[in-house]
Amino acid sequence: MDISLILFELMVILIAAKLGAFLFERIGQPPVLGELVVGIILGNMAFFTNGAVQWFTFFRTDEFIHIFSEIGVIILLFEIGLQSDISELLKVGFPAARVAVVGVVLPFALGYWLTMGLGISSDFNVALFMGATLTATSVGITARVLKDLGKLDLSESRIILGAAVIDDVLGLIVLAIVSGIVTTGAANFSSTAIVSLKAFGFLIGGVLIGRWGAPYVMKLFQKIEVQGVKLAAALGAAFLGAILAKKIGLAPIVGAFAAGLCLDDVQFRGFNEKRSLEEIISPISDLFIPVFFVVIGTSVQIEALLSKEILWMGSILTFAAIFGKYLAGFAAYPRKLDFQSIGIGMIPRGEVGLIFASEGKRLGIITDTLFSMVVLLVMITTLITPPILSIFLKRTK
Amino acid sequence: MDISLILFELMVILIAAKLGAFLFERIGQPPVLGELVVGIILGNMAFFTNGAVQWFTFFRTDEFIHIFSEIGVIILLFEIGLQSDISELLKVGFPAARVAVVGVVLPFALGYWLTMGLGISSDFNVALFMGATLTATSVGITARVLKDLGKLDLSESRIILGAAVIDDVLGLIVLAIVSGIVTTGAANFSSTAIVSLKAFGFLIGGVLIGRWGAPYVMKLFQKIEVQGVKLAAALGAAFLGAILAKKIGLAPIVGAFAAGLCLDDVQFRGFNEKRSLEEIISPISDLFIPVFFVVIGTSVQIEALLSKEILWMGSILTFAAIFGKYLAGFAAYPRKLDFQSIGIGMIPRGEVGLIFASEGKRLGIITDTLFSMVVLLVMITTLITPPILSIFLKRTK
Repeated sequence: MDISLILFELMVILIAAKLGAFLFERIGQPPVLGELVVGIILGNMAFFTNGAVQWFTFFRTDEFIHIFSEIGVIILLFEIGLQSDISELLKVGFPAARVAVVGVVLPFALGYWLTMGLGISSDFNVALFMGATLTATSVGITARVLKDLGKLDLSESRIILGAAVIDDVLGLIVLAIVSGIVTTGAANFSSTAIVSLKAFGFLIGGVLIGRWGAPYVMKLFQKIEVQGVKLAAALGAAFLGAILAKKIGLAPIVGAFAAGLCLDDVQFRGFNEKRSLEEIISPISDLFIPVFFVVIGTSVQIEALLSKEILWMGSILTFAAIFGKYLAGFAAYPRKLDFQSIGIGMIPRGEVGLIFASEGKRLGIITDTLFSMVVLLVMITTLITPPILSIFLKRTK
Repeated sequence: MDISLILFELMVILIAAKLGAFLFERIGQPPVLGELVVGIILGNMAFFTNGAVQWFTFFRTDEFIHIFSEIGVIILLFEIGLQSDISELLKVGFPAARVAVVGVVLPFALGYWLTMGLGISSDFNVALFMGATLTATSVGITARVLKDLGKLDLSESRIILGAAVIDDVLGLIVLAIVSGIVTTGAANFSSTAIVSLKAFGFLIGGVLIGRWGAPYVMKLFQKIEVQGVKLAAALGAAFLGAILAKKIGLAPIVGAFAAGLCLDDVQFRGFNEKRSLEEIISPISDLFIPVFFVVIGTSVQIEALLSKEILWMGSILTFAAIFGKYLAGFAAYPRKLDFQSIGIGMIPRGEVGLIFASEGKRLGIITDTLFSMVVLLVMITTLITPPILSIFLKRTK
């Protein structure tokens, strides 16, 4: 890899991201939407200019930038975990679980039914996989909107975050069941049970051990009296959480969020370094996080979506994906909350949907056309959430 | 690339770097030496444990970590450029130029003479190349020691930084001349003149244009009133400088240093964001810079150096490399300065020496054995400088 090219990419991404964020904020839109749009423009420069500008296509494929961007979303969720209070989060545990379950079941059923009903495919296995790809919320977009609006303390926000974590575990279980049915013709209950136990065990056990052990570990770090050790301790925790989550099969961001939950500002006070963790982490976020959202934008390949079939069928599936999660918000009842904001916050689909679709592609079940529909779905749910969620959240309280 | 592996590497490097820095500081050694030693231990874990621990060898080869580390040293030199006052630097322009010239001529002559005299090779071309590899100072190590000790304001430090920049240009010219002689049998004066003009033109022109244009560009950035734009503007400048320098054939760090020279704290005051640039950049440095020094450490392959010939001949060349730069410090005369500190600050050789040696290898002139000697030389000059320089600098004023 050429260092100049990577420096150039980072420079363009950083500056364009700030410009996009600023312009969108000016017109009353969330900054993250500006970053996404900047990414779409950069990634599709060749398309928009009829091939005249061929640069920037490497933004889509560069591995360094992709990993850099993944570190960005890990840091984002870690920060949000840090700012979340675990006891407050547990208070909304039941409504969050209901939202998660309904938000998995409904989109799954709708996806299955539409795939069969619309004749997208008459294959039972294909319908199962398409249902599965509609299940998992990708919480990065929503988390960013909540953070930018300073609304992380709302009960609605806590339910969204809690439901997104549970949702990720449910997604794993769905994948285990669907893969079992597709490959062996029947759901493999013992392997599904193992997957479920591992995932829930990791989350609950991990957070319990983490909260118990964190003060001791931090005391050890406090003995290393050298500049930057606070940052190393924090990022070390975030990365460890992400690594462990990935090992279990969960999204790395879920692990980073859990790591953030295990840590409190209190533990970071005993350090030699007097600046708060918040002050130290924020420049790191400012560098890494925009790269994530711009890179998501660049991954949209407009030319691949311009087929009537993909646009038409894809839109219907997208509508199902949106509607399923929107309705799931109402599962927070009987609490008196803004159900619509909760449902909207759950709409974005991302990596997990794409991972499911890739798995289906690997098994020979998902065709390129179907895969493109999933890409369209990920794109639309990602782009519409920030503006709509902002409108609803600004109304709340 | 696997994100888990990279997160694991970053986590280990960060935490181990802090531990190493702390322990070495405790025993009165510069923290950077601790980071280097940590790198050597991690990179040679298989060697130290007789093959029992095979992990960590990937630290040497991982591309992501290498690029991440290069960004680290770019940020370090940019920061030092920011903290340097260009008019103060120009005041020591003549002594710095003298130190640079003597520091190129002496090691070159010594390297040439020893290669022939010791019978390392009787080939004129080999001796020329070995002489060339001894010329270029790698300023990263010294810059870090100066920064850690808070000694950047000494005239000695300014001379070292100025001489290192000139030295890099001289290194380019030496390479052009030597390559010309080796490939065509004679020094190609017109191409050498072009290389020299381009390099000096870039540095002088770049800094002039940069200092003239920076306030206007910064005013544009100030209009982008969004979180993190100050950081984006600063890193954008650093990266642009590095990219342009690389394009000319100079080390990217020289460009980053020049970019830092073009910018002043004043230009960063008009931003919406009230935190100083220093406060914003320092967590970024704390994350990236240690990675650079640990990665340098991991690149030391102890097993490759354990041959009597390499150790013996390599040590003599290393002595010549050290002695040549040490004497060059006295070229700052007739100023009344600590010549020894200046000379010692110029001792570290790094990437540039390795690049010259690789070029020689590509041309079939430098053998694997000779290359290993150069590696030994880079390693020893890198490791001895921090402790010795600290002792001398602590005496000064």
